[in-house]
Amino acid sequence: MAAPLSRRDLQFLLYEWLDVESLTARTEFAEHSRETFDAVLELSEDIATKRFKPFNKLGDANEPYVGPDGKVVLPDEISSGINEFVKAGLMGGSFDESVGGMSLPTVINRAAMAWFQASNPGMSSYPFLTVGNAHLLAEYGTPEQIETWVRPLVEGRYFGTMCLSEPQAGSSLADITTNAVPAADGTYRVTGTKMWISAGEHELTENIVHLVLVKVPGGAPGVKGISLMIVPKFLPDGTRNDVELVGLNHKMGNRATTNTLLNFGDGTHRPADEPGAVGYLVGEEHRGLFYMFHMMNEARIGVGSMAMALGYAGYLASLEYAKVRTQGRPADAKDPSSPPVPIIEHADVKRMLLAQKSYVEGALALVLYCSRLVDESATAADAAERDRVTLLLDVLTPIAKSWPSQWCLEANSLAIQVHGGYGYTREFDVEQYYRDNRLNPIHEGTHGIHGLDLLGRKVVMAGGAGLTALVETISATVERATTAENAETRDHAASLRDALADLVTATREAWSVGDPARTLANASLYLEAAGHIVIAWIWLEQELVAAGKQGDFYDGKRLAAQYFFRYESPKVRQQLVMVGSADTTTLEADPAVF
Amino acid sequence: MAAPLSRRDLQFLLYEWLDVESLTARTEFAEHSRETFDAVLELSEDIATKRFKPFNKLGDANEPYVGPDGKVVLPDEISSGINEFVKAGLMGGSFDESVGGMSLPTVINRAAMAWFQASNPGMSSYPFLTVGNAHLLAEYGTPEQIETWVRPLVEGRYFGTMCLSEPQAGSSLADITTNAVPAADGTYRVTGTKMWISAGEHELTENIVHLVLVKVPGGAPGVKGISLMIVPKFLPDGTRNDVELVGLNHKMGNRATTNTLLNFGDGTHRPADEPGAVGYLVGEEHRGLFYMFHMMNEARIGVGSMAMALGYAGYLASLEYAKVRTQGRPADAKDPSSPPVPIIEHADVKRMLLAQKSYVEGALALVLYCSRLVDESATAADAAERDRVTLLLDVLTPIAKSWPSQWCLEANSLAIQVHGGYGYTREFDVEQYYRDNRLNPIHEGTHGIHGLDLLGRKVVMAGGAGLTALVETISATVERATTAENAETRDHAASLRDALADLVTATREAWSVGDPARTLANASLYLEAAGHIVIAWIWLEQELVAAGKQGDFYDGKRLAAQYFFRYESPKVRQQLVMVGSADTTTLEADPAVF
Repeated sequence: MAAPLSRRDLQFLLYEWLDVESLTARTEFAEHSRETFDAVLELSEDIATKRFKPFNKLGDANEPYVGPDGKVVLPDEISSGINEFVKAGLMGGSFDESVGGMSLPTVINRAAMAWFQASNPGMSSYPFLTVGNAHLLAEYGTPEQIETWVRPLVEGRYFGTMCLSEPQAGSSLADITTNAVPAADGTYRVTGTKMWISAGEHELTENIVHLVLVKVPGGAPGVKGISLMIVPKFLPDGTRNDVELVGLNHKMGNRATTNTLLNFGDGTHRPADEPGAVGYLVGEEHRGLFYMFHMMNEARIGVGSMAMALGYAGYLASLEYAKVRTQGRPADAKDPSSPPVPIIEHADVKRMLLAQKSYVEGALALVLYCSRLVDESATAADAAERDRVTLLLDVLTPIAKSWPSQWCLEANSLAIQVHGGYGYTREFDVEQYYRDNRLNPIHEGTHGIHGLDLLGRKVVMAGGAGLTALVETISATVERATTAENAETRDHAASLRDALADLVTATREAWSVGDPARTLANASLYLEAAGHIVIAWIWLEQELVAAGKQGDFYDGKRLAAQYFFRYESPKVRQQLVMVGSADTTTLEADPAVF
Repeated sequence: MAAPLSRRDLQFLLYEWLDVESLTARTEFAEHSRETFDAVLELSEDIATKRFKPFNKLGDANEPYVGPDGKVVLPDEISSGINEFVKAGLMGGSFDESVGGMSLPTVINRAAMAWFQASNPGMSSYPFLTVGNAHLLAEYGTPEQIETWVRPLVEGRYFGTMCLSEPQAGSSLADITTNAVPAADGTYRVTGTKMWISAGEHELTENIVHLVLVKVPGGAPGVKGISLMIVPKFLPDGTRNDVELVGLNHKMGNRATTNTLLNFGDGTHRPADEPGAVGYLVGEEHRGLFYMFHMMNEARIGVGSMAMALGYAGYLASLEYAKVRTQGRPADAKDPSSPPVPIIEHADVKRMLLAQKSYVEGALALVLYCSRLVDESATAADAAERDRVTLLLDVLTPIAKSWPSQWCLEANSLAIQVHGGYGYTREFDVEQYYRDNRLNPIHEGTHGIHGLDLLGRKVVMAGGAGLTALVETISATVERATTAENAETRDHAASLRDALADLVTATREAWSVGDPARTLANASLYLEAAGHIVIAWIWLEQELVAAGKQGDFYDGKRLAAQYFFRYESPKVRQQLVMVGSADTTTLEADPAVF
């Protein structure tokens, strides 16, 4: 069975490119060393490949259901595998020791967790949502809340969720109607319905801690009136809170993760004989979306990582298949009775493998780069550097979420295609990857939402400082590559410089039309173009690291870079023409003519 | 529930564009009229939407299985719906009256059948495979074979299959090992294993007629040594032939169609107490692939039609959803408490709908155009015209198969995206369309195979006459559009002329390198580029038909054409650069570096 991820690639990116060892010189990570990093990576690979990957199909084929006792039933292997994860302390990888964590750099933790995402995405979502939930509370909760909720979350005794969407309000959080009314004891009573809540109900842990976006009376309309509540399934004294499972959603993929419709305060339970679910305010009223974005930004990079991991697993599976499956002969073969060759000998199969390689390795590098920025932001020497790094991360986040979601899904489609008819069957792994991955362009903000975020907010915030940070970062790489020994690398640098200039021009032109609706009409194309430019830059970075190094691995990096610059980068230009001209074909389309 | 296909669009394409009424002036279709055409279309729509569409989910959720008695179990609704189709005489739509058919033009029959494909692809494959099978036998069978097999096939008492692939030989038919040995009585005895046989076993009919590619002793190696056999499940005297179901394949989609691994002559049954399955030679020995291509070319347009139909159903479902689902506000809305708008008001949703519209209506038009060519070929006034039309059809066939398979699958992905999280659930229809459609770029020749077919054979056959026929056809449209009143149409004509010139140049350059392996290294890109150029031409044709006509429907055609020319056509240029330069990035990639 093919490995779901490449240890060698992780080492290349972490140690040869991102120099994560240098982080151990910083106070925050001083107790760590290459040895402790490697130990966590090896431990994760071991548990993921032995206790998660073997049950990936099982979780898909045995979808969660509600048993006659009203409890959600999951296969036992899911529970026991997650227990192994918890027992190894991996839930606490990125948490401070004060709450029971390991204080690992985010970049190392992200790399370690990628083993689980690549091995069994449906299973790994339970702990990962919990970590995101606990991170938010560790940042914005009171000391008492941290003691009550964060500790058991990090210990894996409780799991967590994020409850944003409602049946009538998905992308538009301004329209949520779940409300929370202050009670006399300082708590709140929450009433409403939340939709698409992953891990919203299960029996894996003794409690489930929901972080719930609500409206509290007196708030402004729209997103400025949103508050954030902790609403646990069980109150600290053991009372059953009024959070009720209404139904499980039946999905195309990602089936091992329960996805739920939850009622809050529908009267099924009446804690202290009062209506409504008991909620505890996080931070201040009406600042809920600000806090939630803390979790969402992390979750968005997590979605990008999930998409990447599925793409990576599919790539390696199809690579292995292409090496052993024989079929056909070279285009210039003369003798029809010559033996068939492994399909990896065919140019078109190599094209499909190279495309996958350029997508999944590019996505992994981007996800790790962004995680490294999180560490830089947390440990920056001064405020100016922290601001710069934070801005850069803000600009890259919609790309880190969306680009892998689009292109690693495409990688999964190519992995099926390499397998031919076998790839379309459930006897092989790749069809599940494709189904699982189709979720990623939807949740944590659709593609369209991230396009609006990037062009409408991120590149213009702080007077354009975010875009400037990106341009300076990419330009520095271009400068270094301009003097590279390898002529191909120098060509790539020139090509990237041009594409970056096109991006800047298109941004300026789009914003010069004086009508935000027109500016943003082609925001999704802008997102795609910016994504391809960022990944081209990521590949140029990898080429520079590989420069002068010998061997198949480095040759592979050079080849994937060449593929990306020749086959992929040219797609950008026309997209930016549409953005820069603020084309109104879609904006002005009359709904009546469809 | 949204209609799965548009009656209005069919009428536009058939009567306003393709002028199918004029076919009734030809001897072969003289008994037909617009009234009989419309009657078949309405009958098909009625049965498809009432007896096929309501069971599309049912067939997906209740996958065929082998019962304890060894028989394949399918939901009853599938059997009764297909019976309705048979009872209405629709199996015989395109057959001659001499074998019980209606003698309909292919183009009308194709349009009628699209209702079934759009309503329930898994169910409709049983009759469609039967029709393809019977067409082949009607063309190449002896009078006795036609009486024995074609009649009951057209009557729907027997169903048919095509058995090409084997476990070790999918794309490479040269490597099949199933063999047939002549018996003393003029029949053959067939031994071997066939894989991916759709409708290979079921209890829907009293017999199943397999058309099986085999090797007969004494044949040349490779595809020139292939013969074609009729191998029925039951012999004419009722004896059980030695065709045995080994297993059902479990697929990601298209589940209502059984897909089987079949053994021929494994000894489970011994007709006349001799080993091997009894087979009847079709035509002459060693010409089997020639005959099979008769069926395959029809099947390939059928696959394109299936992909189109799924894309069309998804487009209409997402269009309906976008009109009723409210979410968010326009980009320039100032008041966050204003009511949310239907999502079809958002530019990015309109983009996703326009893209779908341009893909699925473009694909439908192409499929019908090719079907019209089949009719032209069958009724051409002279040999020169028949040759021209046949060549054009030969060139268009790989595109008619592959382009809808690629872009109507993309349409299905966009239909999910328009639905947001709901689209990812099995409570809605679009996720199934997406799963069902993923098969189409694989079967009846993968994308890669059709790229090789187009660039390696079709555009160079007969001294390039196929490409010339295509270029002349497109150029004639460009000429007409050059003088169009609408400036946008004139721009499209100019753009298409340039793209066509690029295609011709790239073809010549690719073939000028003197190394077929290099010429064909980027054949898949060539296929995609040629496909986009053909669909751009199809849109220009539709624009010309709509010119000067008022109303939402025609405005919609103009808008979709505009979308295609602005957003899609520009993708072609870079693909042709790669083809023309015979780029060797993929060809020379060393498998060791992946």
